[in-house]
Amino acid sequence: MNLHPMKLVTVVCEALLEARVVEILRDCGAHGHTAFCVRGSGSQGERSADIIETGNVQVEVILKPVVAETVLERLYRELFDDYAIVAYETDVRVMRPDKF
Amino acid sequence: MNLHPMKLVTVVCEALLEARVVEILRDCGAHGHTAFCVRGSGSQGERSADIIETGNVQVEVILKPVVAETVLERLYRELFDDYAIVAYETDVRVMRPDKF
Amino acid sequence: MNLHPMKLVTVVCEALLEARVVEILRDCGAHGHTAFCVRGSGSQGERSADIIETGNVQVEVILKPVVAETVLERLYRELFDDYAIVAYETDVRVMRPDKF
Repeated sequence: MNLHPMKLVTVVCEALLEARVVEILRDCGAHGHTAFCVRGSGSQGERSADIIETGNVQVEVILKPVVAETVLERLYRELFDDYAIVAYETDVRVMRPDKF
Repeated sequence: MNLHPMKLVTVVCEALLEARVVEILRDCGAHGHTAFCVRGSGSQGERSADIIETGNVQVEVILKPVVAETVLERLYRELFDDYAIVAYETDVRVMRPDKF
Repeated sequence: MNLHPMKLVTVVCEALLEARVVEILRDCGAHGHTAFCVRGSGSQGERSADIIETGNVQVEVILKPVVAETVLERLYRELFDDYAIVAYETDVRVMRPDKF
């Protein structure tokens, strides 16, 4: 069985940002994602060390490596200055690359 | 402290498939898993580009590499033709390999 | 865009342990985490092969590699003997390393 290298991009953000994140994913050509609610805390950027406890959402999407880079760049450019958002990339291997 | 390389296998599927996925995991010798509900969208295979929004489940299990391969092969052979299902493998390192 | 290598540490434990796990994370200098409830089964350590089905929690945190090691060592030393707990480390790449 062949496994194909892809990127898993994970985004953690305020629930009200989910629709915008998903819109960016679709714009970039993502074919599907999952989303679920998480509790959590995080630092509010660099100006404050306060800990916030809010209803956040975790969005996960599997992407071709080049698409993952585009998604991360857009998230960074469009959302990182104004919102508490975390995004990271993980190497994964999938069975059916045509799905992504 | 020694960390031991293992595989994390993640399966995203319709909620009604969870029991069959877990049965395959146990059959293959998995010693535990987690499952949680996710929202999401995905392409329904290759014949349709329609986006579906359904209650799905994400199942995660840590496995020895050789067991991960067996699990992925069985998921592929038994479920991929008939269901909207995504499965992927990630490299992880665990503290207590005897648990898996 | 530069991506920076970090560790994602994932902890699966009984819900009543969440506060202690989070306390360990903060003690070690973690700047944020997510937590969500999961269903699941696992082996109760080495003395019993019984399968338990309980409300568990999955805690995820992104850490600098050296901090991840400290966190895993403390979880191991303080909780692994007495509780059903799983912890593992994954390589990830983040956009804003100053957040972690």
